[in-house]
Amino acid sequence: MQIAMVGLGRMGANMATRLARGGHQVAAWDRSPEATQKTAAGQSGITGAESLEALVRSLDAPRAVWIMIPAGDPTEQMVDTLLGMLQQGDAIIDGGNSNYKDSMRRGAKCAERGVSFIDCGTSGGVWGLANGYSLMVGGDDAAVGRLRPLFETLAPGPNTGWGHVGPVGSGHFTKMVHNGIEYGMMQAFAEGFSIMQHKKEFALDLAQVAEIWREGSVVRSWLLDLTARALAENPTMDGIAPYVSDSGEGRWTVAEAIDLDVPAPVITHSLIARLRSRDAESFTDKLLAAMRNQFGGHAIKREG
Amino acid sequence: MQIAMVGLGRMGANMATRLARGGHQVAAWDRSPEATQKTAAGQSGITGAESLEALVRSLDAPRAVWIMIPAGDPTEQMVDTLLGMLQQGDAIIDGGNSNYKDSMRRGAKCAERGVSFIDCGTSGGVWGLANGYSLMVGGDDAAVGRLRPLFETLAPGPNTGWGHVGPVGSGHFTKMVHNGIEYGMMQAFAEGFSIMQHKKEFALDLAQVAEIWREGSVVRSWLLDLTARALAENPTMDGIAPYVSDSGEGRWTVAEAIDLDVPAPVITHSLIARLRSRDAESFTDKLLAAMRNQFGGHAIKREG
Amino acid sequence: MQIAMVGLGRMGANMATRLARGGHQVAAWDRSPEATQKTAAGQSGITGAESLEALVRSLDAPRAVWIMIPAGDPTEQMVDTLLGMLQQGDAIIDGGNSNYKDSMRRGAKCAERGVSFIDCGTSGGVWGLANGYSLMVGGDDAAVGRLRPLFETLAPGPNTGWGHVGPVGSGHFTKMVHNGIEYGMMQAFAEGFSIMQHKKEFALDLAQVAEIWREGSVVRSWLLDLTARALAENPTMDGIAPYVSDSGEGRWTVAEAIDLDVPAPVITHSLIARLRSRDAESFTDKLLAAMRNQFGGHAIKREG
Amino acid sequence: MQIAMVGLGRMGANMATRLARGGHQVAAWDRSPEATQKTAAGQSGITGAESLEALVRSLDAPRAVWIMIPAGDPTEQMVDTLLGMLQQGDAIIDGGNSNYKDSMRRGAKCAERGVSFIDCGTSGGVWGLANGYSLMVGGDDAAVGRLRPLFETLAPGPNTGWGHVGPVGSGHFTKMVHNGIEYGMMQAFAEGFSIMQHKKEFALDLAQVAEIWREGSVVRSWLLDLTARALAENPTMDGIAPYVSDSGEGRWTVAEAIDLDVPAPVITHSLIARLRSRDAESFTDKLLAAMRNQFGGHAIKREG
Repeated sequence: MQIAMVGLGRMGANMATRLARGGHQVAAWDRSPEATQKTAAGQSGITGAESLEALVRSLDAPRAVWIMIPAGDPTEQMVDTLLGMLQQGDAIIDGGNSNYKDSMRRGAKCAERGVSFIDCGTSGGVWGLANGYSLMVGGDDAAVGRLRPLFETLAPGPNTGWGHVGPVGSGHFTKMVHNGIEYGMMQAFAEGFSIMQHKKEFALDLAQVAEIWREGSVVRSWLLDLTARALAENPTMDGIAPYVSDSGEGRWTVAEAIDLDVPAPVITHSLIARLRSRDAESFTDKLLAAMRNQFGGHAIKREG
Repeated sequence: MQIAMVGLGRMGANMATRLARGGHQVAAWDRSPEATQKTAAGQSGITGAESLEALVRSLDAPRAVWIMIPAGDPTEQMVDTLLGMLQQGDAIIDGGNSNYKDSMRRGAKCAERGVSFIDCGTSGGVWGLANGYSLMVGGDDAAVGRLRPLFETLAPGPNTGWGHVGPVGSGHFTKMVHNGIEYGMMQAFAEGFSIMQHKKEFALDLAQVAEIWREGSVVRSWLLDLTARALAENPTMDGIAPYVSDSGEGRWTVAEAIDLDVPAPVITHSLIARLRSRDAESFTDKLLAAMRNQFGGHAIKREG
Repeated sequence: MQIAMVGLGRMGANMATRLARGGHQVAAWDRSPEATQKTAAGQSGITGAESLEALVRSLDAPRAVWIMIPAGDPTEQMVDTLLGMLQQGDAIIDGGNSNYKDSMRRGAKCAERGVSFIDCGTSGGVWGLANGYSLMVGGDDAAVGRLRPLFETLAPGPNTGWGHVGPVGSGHFTKMVHNGIEYGMMQAFAEGFSIMQHKKEFALDLAQVAEIWREGSVVRSWLLDLTARALAENPTMDGIAPYVSDSGEGRWTVAEAIDLDVPAPVITHSLIARLRSRDAESFTDKLLAAMRNQFGGHAIKREG
Repeated sequence: MQIAMVGLGRMGANMATRLARGGHQVAAWDRSPEATQKTAAGQSGITGAESLEALVRSLDAPRAVWIMIPAGDPTEQMVDTLLGMLQQGDAIIDGGNSNYKDSMRRGAKCAERGVSFIDCGTSGGVWGLANGYSLMVGGDDAAVGRLRPLFETLAPGPNTGWGHVGPVGSGHFTKMVHNGIEYGMMQAFAEGFSIMQHKKEFALDLAQVAEIWREGSVVRSWLLDLTARALAENPTMDGIAPYVSDSGEGRWTVAEAIDLDVPAPVITHSLIARLRSRDAESFTDKLLAAMRNQFGGHAIKREG
């Protein structure tokens, strides 16, 4: 079917490509003309548009516009802009990492204009082009039903890896929790490998251990596959700073857990560990050192 | 090749079966004659022994005895008993969940008698019979090399899912860390699904969400496959007590992390969460309620 | 000086009394006439008002109204109502546990009308009447300066236990963090006493231990004094449910820490432990038990 | 009464001084002759001994020797050495930070020789000389009774700040838990002040806030008094490395909690936070960064 893709970064370009390979007619546009050109050039079935207006004009009603751009203000503005161009019966699909509360609000705003809003939580990263994406779709039945061919192409298979999970907001909510779990799993693996790395007497080959676990073990998983790759490429993590970013969903999951009175110590601690990784000059720890000195006369390590 | 299997519980019986299916001659014994009989009856290639002595006598030198019995005292006694029956050049393989420090000690004890001791961390649970086991093998090169055909049969494939990770002790050490990671992953999944279960407004179908994630998502994993099964069978966890056992490896991993000065908050919290699940009459929480009453006059909830 | 006290619950009534004892003229009102009557009857220097209007009318300009009512909607409505009755130059002091962001917003709203808004974080609980309250005062210099006699009376002494910490919002912010720290300290004590309570072989007398620590130890503190009282009254915590409420500041502190990228594992965990105390039917733990059964065939404890 | 003090570091010298000031005859010895000379010179009532043998010879039976030296091997060897010099009816008091399991073992060893062993958990740090020490005493009734005058002098008062908590081992056990609680309280304060320090918009004066809380607040405590001092001396913690040592009791408390199946998340995390403070090149965090790069193509921060 016909689909417009707005935002042709790593994720959007790959999704446009997977859709085109699946036989859909993809109209693509990015605010960077170079990105538009590159995506369209790389794949038959993708047509680049010169402007957002041109993109929308190129579609037959009812239109479907998939946006794949940064969450927050950029998405907010894009939804508003598109609402000014679209008509009753059209649909906007937000495949980015928006906060589900924003999606609910945007869904209501779109509904007032008769435009369907679909929040599609998207997992799979750079591997999604080859493997398919895991898609958690929120929205009303009719709109999701109409767009089903797109989801079936983007997912690993027509009947796997995607689903309509509930009303608008539920797709990004589910994706948010997915990322919270992802944080916890990543931290569990990283801690475990770090324990083994510190056990010098066994001189363990961490890449080998990861490889062993990839088949038959309880911890076998895609994250382990990637960990095995990372360890094979750089067993000592040489040159990598111990600095871990977080992208929003983790902290939203923690906030949601507290709002719902759900104790979530492991997901919460995965986030805290990332905060700590970026706090090299911890005031907390300096004050602790000063306190120990105050009551016990314990020596303070000086900076320098 | 010829192998004796001692201990025919769920794990031992399955491993005997997988070895026999792989063409090895398995002599099997359990302290329960029924278990011995049942295992031998179920599978050509397995011969039941009437006693441990008979088992050992039935083997040609150099003998290999695989023990698959509870960690701690039972394993300690079995190694001692076997040492009294075996001869220089024979081998004992401990495939159970022994503490790696015990394995190092037992390895030294065996070495004094010229018997090889191999600690084989074994993961895969009840699914190992069909899928193969992930095996982390510790021991000296010669002994591990001689037993290679066994590992190749037990693992998912000759070249996958098993490896010789280091000297005696390193196999159980690696398995211990594996289980610590497993605790963390399980807790991350359980917390995530609990957050979704508490989000009543979306009425999410947790089994559907798990199913969606099984393909293409970052959290796809065998534990997720099992979670999807568990949720499909019993979406509300009806009748299940919120009571989670732990089996030793988790707490050993926590202790090891502290010994090595490795911060491991997520693995540690996975253990603490299990302790809390079994502490329904938490003295800590009662005292907190009493303290709040003391300073703020806050009402105390009464038991009953 | 003259002061109106609105809200005569445990905290408000005690503060009115302490102010009257300190020589101030207190006009008091509660939406419950009984509470008003009881507070006024109990103490010379306190005059009960028949209505909020009457209360405000009874004051000379510039007026000062101290509100001591539940945070959230009740405080919001009270500020709005008072703004309709007060005049330029008057002052509202919010001594409750409001969220500092609300206080900032209310401060701006009051400023538009020329009314000073002061957020006064108040600690001390039911003991404040006798010991004085610790007061963290936010607001502009002039207003705080004019009300100084009130703070000097309410605090443990004119020069101790209170201070002007910054602009509107900073008082409640500081109190919020105070309560976060309080959660952490309480949890630390409760865990420690629980460890001792479980060490049956030493048959420790927990109240005695608390008493010993009250003098000379590093952990001596007011919370320990109260813990000693609680343990002396009820050493086994008999009849107390392991159910711990939380009142907002803890979760706000956790949210703030994350917003500021400050790792605060202990304060965060104090909150999570309280959430867990109220989650007797933990879905998380049920799912963990189900997962263990799936992969290892481990028995599930049944409810009943 | 007569007492020998062995070990004249910061703690031992101060305790000898406090005992002498309290009217006891103190025989003092340190392996460093300078330390012995300095302690004896500083205080009438303290006599320096030239050797351990001379120290013991200078005492009348039944002798009491208080050891105040590093835990572990030094204490082990000192107890053994003293056992060779003491006689039935004599007593050894270990006032250091020994592991309570060691104390139980040493107590049994001493009992075989008819020597009383008393484990005296000692809190109060460098301030104990002036304020008195909090003493948690383990041992048998007769021995503790005989030494009571010493405890009454060392404690803040004859009837406060010390107590006989149980059999040998219980004193050091109680002190161990005390330190676990101390870790949790310190971390709670440090996190709270760090949150305030990061709230730049309020420009809070942290030393002022600490000072306000010292009277009337729920968190008032000796650790807060010291924190106020530390913040007054160095509000920005300038020049202090974010590096926090731990001295054994914290990790023993964590291990004990797990052994007793007591969930102790806050005490545990206080320890983990200290471990993290010393792990500037966290392998865990490097691996997390590498994993994020693997699945999402997220940029890795480079070291340098």
